[in-house]
Amino acid sequence: MNIQNLSREQLNERLSVLTDKYNEYKSLGLKLDMSRGKPGADQLEISNDLLDPALLGNYKASNGFDVRNYGILDGIPECKNLFAEIFDVPADNVIVFGNASLTIMYDYVAQCMIFGAGAEPWAAQKGIKFLCPVPGYDRHFAILEQFGIEMINIPTNENGPDMDMIDELIKDEKVKGIICVPMYSNPAGITYSNETVRRFAALKPAAKDFRVIWDNAYCVHHVTDTHDTLLNIFAAAKEYGNEDLFIEVTSTSKISFPGAGVSALAASDANIKAIKSRMTVQTIGYDKINMLRHANYFKNLDGIKAHMLKHAEILKPKFNAVLDAFDKNLKGKGIASWTNPNGGYFISLDVSEGCAKRTVELCKEAGVTLTGAGATFPYGKDPEDKNIRIAPTFPSRDELCKAVEILCLCVEISAIEKILG
Amino acid sequence: MNIQNLSREQLNERLSVLTDKYNEYKSLGLKLDMSRGKPGADQLEISNDLLDPALLGNYKASNGFDVRNYGILDGIPECKNLFAEIFDVPADNVIVFGNASLTIMYDYVAQCMIFGAGAEPWAAQKGIKFLCPVPGYDRHFAILEQFGIEMINIPTNENGPDMDMIDELIKDEKVKGIICVPMYSNPAGITYSNETVRRFAALKPAAKDFRVIWDNAYCVHHVTDTHDTLLNIFAAAKEYGNEDLFIEVTSTSKISFPGAGVSALAASDANIKAIKSRMTVQTIGYDKINMLRHANYFKNLDGIKAHMLKHAEILKPKFNAVLDAFDKNLKGKGIASWTNPNGGYFISLDVSEGCAKRTVELCKEAGVTLTGAGATFPYGKDPEDKNIRIAPTFPSRDELCKAVEILCLCVEISAIEKILG
Repeated sequence: MNIQNLSREQLNERLSVLTDKYNEYKSLGLKLDMSRGKPGADQLEISNDLLDPALLGNYKASNGFDVRNYGILDGIPECKNLFAEIFDVPADNVIVFGNASLTIMYDYVAQCMIFGAGAEPWAAQKGIKFLCPVPGYDRHFAILEQFGIEMINIPTNENGPDMDMIDELIKDEKVKGIICVPMYSNPAGITYSNETVRRFAALKPAAKDFRVIWDNAYCVHHVTDTHDTLLNIFAAAKEYGNEDLFIEVTSTSKISFPGAGVSALAASDANIKAIKSRMTVQTIGYDKINMLRHANYFKNLDGIKAHMLKHAEILKPKFNAVLDAFDKNLKGKGIASWTNPNGGYFISLDVSEGCAKRTVELCKEAGVTLTGAGATFPYGKDPEDKNIRIAPTFPSRDELCKAVEILCLCVEISAIEKILG
Repeated sequence: MNIQNLSREQLNERLSVLTDKYNEYKSLGLKLDMSRGKPGADQLEISNDLLDPALLGNYKASNGFDVRNYGILDGIPECKNLFAEIFDVPADNVIVFGNASLTIMYDYVAQCMIFGAGAEPWAAQKGIKFLCPVPGYDRHFAILEQFGIEMINIPTNENGPDMDMIDELIKDEKVKGIICVPMYSNPAGITYSNETVRRFAALKPAAKDFRVIWDNAYCVHHVTDTHDTLLNIFAAAKEYGNEDLFIEVTSTSKISFPGAGVSALAASDANIKAIKSRMTVQTIGYDKINMLRHANYFKNLDGIKAHMLKHAEILKPKFNAVLDAFDKNLKGKGIASWTNPNGGYFISLDVSEGCAKRTVELCKEAGVTLTGAGATFPYGKDPEDKNIRIAPTFPSRDELCKAVEILCLCVEISAIEKILG
């Protein structure tokens, strides 16, 4: 039953039925939150053994350094090695930071603003711009907006952003960079194709101080049994002598504990040197006790992969609950399309044009909090007002099923309201 | 025996004796480090129980929030309360950060550079300056130097910096602030007198965006049984409506674990708001598991005070070893003076003018690493080349005794060399 084909009378009838159902839900006084990519309570339990002090042994890192004391700017060796394996780069090209890759990115952009990226400080160059594949991560956009960097939307399909558009736009030397999630992207869950990664690697920006912030937040975060793979950007960039263009970050926030994990950066020799020259003034070193905990608990990439299977086991039924409800309630109605990702933390839902804000509002009134409509676009402005980020991880499966049921109702109600005008 | 009164012959004779002793030490191939304010191995043991996972209970903060998950920008309530008690300010005026107050200060200066402190960004105002009480903390100076902020030396006596000089200099609106350690200062170990704190509180800077970074790193770090006290700067500033001038920081780095502790900031309502508006983009929140650990372990200020007695017990003999050796080897020779602090991490040694660099060099050649001469002054330039920061905490007492013996030798050798010309 494609909604688009119904008569006004049929639509009014349908709206009346849906509104009754909606009001029923509303009267329940529900409080369901699908707004943020937060792991659920059961996922937190998986990593509790990480807090066992036995993991810290005699508090010595592999280089003999006491992790309880000051020192070691770029991270203890075993933790650098762990991230080197994750990034697939030499440990010398890794720096281990505190609990948040968001802070690494923020501080890196701040560094470029104040000190530049090998040229004049970005802050001194008026009117600089960044390219933002959309839909994207609202916290990325918030960083750029805070620093007054103009953001340009780059449409994305299942292979990644529109590379022709990017190639064209980077001829402008005011365009200083791109910020993106190349694997299990936030919110679409797509992974950039090999062809896309190679085109990133081959970029020829006019700006000499151009940087791609390659936020590989979900590099080991598979949900289904089919695992996406992402080409190593540094290996690809090497062929073009372009290693200096890329700043890659990740963290264990969604591997161990959100907010109490360890984050890391991979970059070229020159960028590592520049970043360390800033860091050595900003800190004596990040929390090495937490680094040792993580390194000794996970041991290596295989240890992390095994751990991620436990997360997947919890996440798979949640993702399926959303996808099943979409299939059951929205499919074939001509009012929505959605992604079906193999990993990450989100499903991207596109509703009818001009209906995202209204859908989110209807949900809110019925007690279901979604990520704000528009959040997946720079400045919070979705030009077509149709994208909604679905974060299925935080609620329990029961809550989630109820929430999605309500969401589907709201998608349809807003679509019909829109047609009826 | 005042060296200054000896004949050239007597001096040559004495130098020969000292040099023989020096060479004996040198031949031992020692490796002693008195360079940094690092707690010793025995101090690290004191806090090991902090790592007991039982302290984390069911992982819930007092507001019911699971500390393992994302969220809470400014710190969990019990940790805010703990720092509120330390700072003696309301908890609403506290933000809890990551492991380093150094990073809080760096990020705050960076924020002022990029976004300003209620006026034009500091970076956009050319030729801005900071006042630096000397001798002072090298890492403070490194922050200002990295941001290209001109530093002006302010002489300090046992009551604090020269407030007349400060009052005069802040008539220049290019002077944007002061950075200082008001209690058990680094390196002199002096605590600002009530009169000094009141004059800080009453400052009338020409710049509307003036800030005092009040680095209260050693607020509970007593070593002797006589405890210095510092007036509450916010209480004092309130009388003058000057609360917005002050950014106070501290951390547990030298209470629990250096590099794996918790840091915090106290500021006025307006400054807290401005800092949060930056932070909310820079992070989702700092490590709350570590906050809960600290809050539940220490419970309150009394808990911290009791814990600090254990540190003092270890530190007192070390400070005494240095002071005793100075008394024995340097007193009355007219070649050195030093401070005798009640707390903190350092003793400040002034050698003969023009002799600090040479003393440090001689020590280094004999295997004793000191903080670089000049480090206690902006740009590493001690105008009289006489101040040396002594950090007695890291070596064992035996090592320390040997190191100080060598240091005293080097102080005298360089003084005689200087007189002989």
